[in-house]
Amino acid sequence: MESIKKYIAEFIGTLVLVVMGCGTAMLVGCDAKNGGGYILTALAFGLVIVAMAYSVGNISGCHINPAVSLGCLINGDISFKDFIGYIISQCLGALAGSGILAFVFWKGHIVDQTGGFGTNGLAGVGGSRLAGLVVEAVLTAIFVFAILGVTSKKAKHGSFGGLVIGLTLTLVHILGIGLTGTSVNPARSFGPAIVAAINGNAAPLGQLWVFIVGPLVGAAFAAVVYRFLEGKKEA
Amino acid sequence: MESIKKYIAEFIGTLVLVVMGCGTAMLVGCDAKNGGGYILTALAFGLVIVAMAYSVGNISGCHINPAVSLGCLINGDISFKDFIGYIISQCLGALAGSGILAFVFWKGHIVDQTGGFGTNGLAGVGGSRLAGLVVEAVLTAIFVFAILGVTSKKAKHGSFGGLVIGLTLTLVHILGIGLTGTSVNPARSFGPAIVAAINGNAAPLGQLWVFIVGPLVGAAFAAVVYRFLEGKKEA
Amino acid sequence: MESIKKYIAEFIGTLVLVVMGCGTAMLVGCDAKNGGGYILTALAFGLVIVAMAYSVGNISGCHINPAVSLGCLINGDISFKDFIGYIISQCLGALAGSGILAFVFWKGHIVDQTGGFGTNGLAGVGGSRLAGLVVEAVLTAIFVFAILGVTSKKAKHGSFGGLVIGLTLTLVHILGIGLTGTSVNPARSFGPAIVAAINGNAAPLGQLWVFIVGPLVGAAFAAVVYRFLEGKKEA
Amino acid sequence: MESIKKYIAEFIGTLVLVVMGCGTAMLVGCDAKNGGGYILTALAFGLVIVAMAYSVGNISGCHINPAVSLGCLINGDISFKDFIGYIISQCLGALAGSGILAFVFWKGHIVDQTGGFGTNGLAGVGGSRLAGLVVEAVLTAIFVFAILGVTSKKAKHGSFGGLVIGLTLTLVHILGIGLTGTSVNPARSFGPAIVAAINGNAAPLGQLWVFIVGPLVGAAFAAVVYRFLEGKKEA
Repeated sequence: MESIKKYIAEFIGTLVLVVMGCGTAMLVGCDAKNGGGYILTALAFGLVIVAMAYSVGNISGCHINPAVSLGCLINGDISFKDFIGYIISQCLGALAGSGILAFVFWKGHIVDQTGGFGTNGLAGVGGSRLAGLVVEAVLTAIFVFAILGVTSKKAKHGSFGGLVIGLTLTLVHILGIGLTGTSVNPARSFGPAIVAAINGNAAPLGQLWVFIVGPLVGAAFAAVVYRFLEGKKEA
Repeated sequence: MESIKKYIAEFIGTLVLVVMGCGTAMLVGCDAKNGGGYILTALAFGLVIVAMAYSVGNISGCHINPAVSLGCLINGDISFKDFIGYIISQCLGALAGSGILAFVFWKGHIVDQTGGFGTNGLAGVGGSRLAGLVVEAVLTAIFVFAILGVTSKKAKHGSFGGLVIGLTLTLVHILGIGLTGTSVNPARSFGPAIVAAINGNAAPLGQLWVFIVGPLVGAAFAAVVYRFLEGKKEA
Repeated sequence: MESIKKYIAEFIGTLVLVVMGCGTAMLVGCDAKNGGGYILTALAFGLVIVAMAYSVGNISGCHINPAVSLGCLINGDISFKDFIGYIISQCLGALAGSGILAFVFWKGHIVDQTGGFGTNGLAGVGGSRLAGLVVEAVLTAIFVFAILGVTSKKAKHGSFGGLVIGLTLTLVHILGIGLTGTSVNPARSFGPAIVAAINGNAAPLGQLWVFIVGPLVGAAFAAVVYRFLEGKKEA
Repeated sequence: MESIKKYIAEFIGTLVLVVMGCGTAMLVGCDAKNGGGYILTALAFGLVIVAMAYSVGNISGCHINPAVSLGCLINGDISFKDFIGYIISQCLGALAGSGILAFVFWKGHIVDQTGGFGTNGLAGVGGSRLAGLVVEAVLTAIFVFAILGVTSKKAKHGSFGGLVIGLTLTLVHILGIGLTGTSVNPARSFGPAIVAAINGNAAPLGQLWVFIVGPLVGAAFAAVVYRFLEGKKEA
C-alpha cells in the first residue's frame, strides 16, 4: 500500500510538471529572441519542482524524472522494484499531463506557441544528434549532481533540497531551452511526444531516443562521480 | 480577542495581496506578448505571499484566500467558526485593497492597463466557462496541494512554508495569467469585481461564480488527495 | 567601540544599497514599458538587502534605512542613541554611494538612464504629493510589517529574515518603481538628491520631504499595528 | 587523497560555472537594451553557484573563484598549499568549460552572441582601465563581504550560505554585465580569454590583468574590513 501511494505521488508530480512546464512553453512561447517567454518557461519548470518537492516529496521523494530515479538507484537510495514502479508512474503521469493540456488548449481555442505540445527537439543545435546528446548529458549531469549533493545525509542541508533542486532545474533550462528545449527528463519528453504523434506530428517521437539516452547517461555519470568524491555514504 | 486579531490579520493580508498583486497588473499590464509586465505580475502575487506569510502568518496562519481556508477546514486545521470569520475578513480586505488602488490610480492620473481593476475573466480561454473552471480548479489544486505538503507537521519543513507557498503562487500565475488572469482565490476575484461594477463595468461580476466555484472545487480535491496520500495526521 | 563598528556597518550597507540599486536604475533604466530594466532594478534593490543582511546584519542588524530604524525604535529593539547614530551613518553612506556612482559613470562615459542619479520623484503619480505620500506610506508599512514579523523572536523564523526582507523590498519596488521610483527609505532618497543638486538638478531635493515623511509615517503605523496584533514581546 | 578530491571538486565546479554562465551569455546575449538576455545571464551565474554550493560545496567549500580563495586565505579558512591547489584547479576547470562550449557551439552551428566566448572587457566603461578596475574591485568586495558574512561560524546561518552567495552573484552581475561583463573571478575571465585567443581574438587576453587585479584587490579589502568589523573569529 505504501508503495502504491508512492507511485500515485510520482504520477501526480510528473503530471503537474508537464502541465505547468510544457503548458507555459505552449502558452507564452520560448523563443530566445523574446526574453519574456524564455524566462517564464525556465521559471515554470523550476518552480513546479519547488511546489512538488515539498508535497509529493513528503510521500515519494519527488523524483518525477526517470534520470533522477536512475541516479538514486546507482546511489543506493531506492530498490530496483521501486525504480521500475517510479518510471512507469512518471511516464503515465507525463502522458496524462499532456492530455490535460491538449484539452484546455483545444477547448479554450488557444494557439500552441511551440507547435508541438512542448516537445523537445534538435533544431537549436542545427539538427546535430551528437550535440543534442552532449547537451542533454551535460545538463542532466549537473542537475543530478546538485540533487545528490543537497540531499546527501552527510551534508545535512535539511529542507533546502526542494528549493535548490528547483533553482537548478531553472538553471539548466536557461541554457538548454535555446539548444534542445531542455529535457533532462525522459518522461517529460515522452508524454508530449506521444500526444504530438496522436495529433499528427510524429517528428518528436523519432528523436525521443536522444532525450532518453542523453539524460540517462548524464545521470549515471553524475552519480558515479558524486559517490567517488563524497566517499562512503552515511546511513 | 485572539480570534478578532486573527480576523484583522486576514483582513490586512488580503488587502495587501490585492494592492500589490492587482496593483502591479493595473500599472504595468500583463499581456503575454510583453514579457515584462507578465513576469512582474506573477512575481508580485508570489512575493506578497512571502511578505505576508512571515508577518500576518505569525498571527492567523496567513490564508488570505477562502480556497486555502476550505482546504484547511477539510484537513482539520481550523474550526468552522474561524472558517466563516476568515472568509468574511478576506472578502472585506480584498474590497478595501481595491478601494485603495482606485484612489491612487484616480488621484495619480494613472491608466489602468487591465481596464478593470485587475479582475479575472475568460477572454484568455476563448470565453469557455468549462475551460475556465478546469484551469482554476487545476491551478488551485496544485497550489493547495503544495500548501498542505509544506505545512505538514509530519514533514517538518519549518519556516520554509512561506517561501515555498509564495513561489508556488508565482508558478500558478505564470501559466494562469494568460488563461484566466489567475484567481485561485475567490476573495481576490471578489474585491476588484465589486469595485469594477461600481465604476460601471459589471461584466467581471457576472463571471465571478467561475472564480468561486473553480478554486473551491480544486482546493477540496487537493485536500482529499493529500490527506489520502500522507495518511494519518501528526498532531 | 562596538557602537562605532555598528555605525560603520550601517554606513557600508547603505553605501552598497545605493551603489547597486540606484546604479542599476542608472545603467539599464526602469521604464515600465521596457520590462527588462524595471525587473532588473526591482531585483537589484531586493538582492542587495539579501547580500547585506547576512554580512552587515551580523554586526548591526542591517537596517540601512531610517524608516526601518524608526520601526525598530518603536518596537523597542534599539536605543534612542543608536537610532540617531544609525540614521547619520545611513545618510552618509547613501551620499558616499552616490559619489561612487557619479565617479564611475563620469569616468566610464556612461549615460545615466534616470537622468538624476536614481532619485525619487512624483512624475509617475501625475505630480500629486498626496498620491506620492500615500504610495510611500503604504509601501513602507508593508515593508516594515514584514520585517517585524520575520524577525520576531516569538515566531522563530531564524535565518529566513534576510531572504524574506530582500524579497519584500523587490515586491514593493515592483509596484512602486512606476509610481514614485520607490523610496521607502529616506537615506536612499537623500544621497542621490544631494549629488543631483550638486550636478545642477535641484528638483529632487525640493520633493525630498515626501520621501522622508511618507516612509516614516508608514513605518510608525506598521510598528504600532504589528505590536498590537502580536501582543506582548518575547525577549 | 582528500586534497585531490577537493581539487577535482573545484575543477568541476569552475567548469560548470563557465559552461552555464558564459554559455548562457553566448546563447542569448546580454545586451542591456534587450532585457531578456541580460536577466537570463545574471540568473545563470547566480543559480550555478546555488547548484554547486550544495554539491561541490560538500567536498571543497565551493570557492570556484581565486578571489574567494584569497578572501578565505586572509580570513584564515584555508592553508596556503590548498590556496595554490584551488587556484590551479579553478583555472584548468574554466579552460575545460570554455572548451566544452566551443565544441557545442561549433557542432551545433550556434552563433556566439558575445563574439568572444563570454570574455570580459572594458567596452561598457568607455575603455577606461581605471573605471574597470574600480568596478571589479567594488563588485568583488561586495561579493566576498557577503560570503564571509553568511559563512561566519559566529553568525550561524547554516545552509543559507549557498543560496545567499548565489543571489549575491546574480546581484553583482545585474550591475556589472553592462559595465565590464562582470568577472569578480579571475578564473572565469582566464578560460574564455585563452579559448578566444586560440580562435584568433587576442584582445580579451590583453585586458585579462584588469580582471585579475581588480577582483583580488576587492577580495582582500573585503576580508580585512569584515575581519575588523566582526572581531575575533569563533572556531
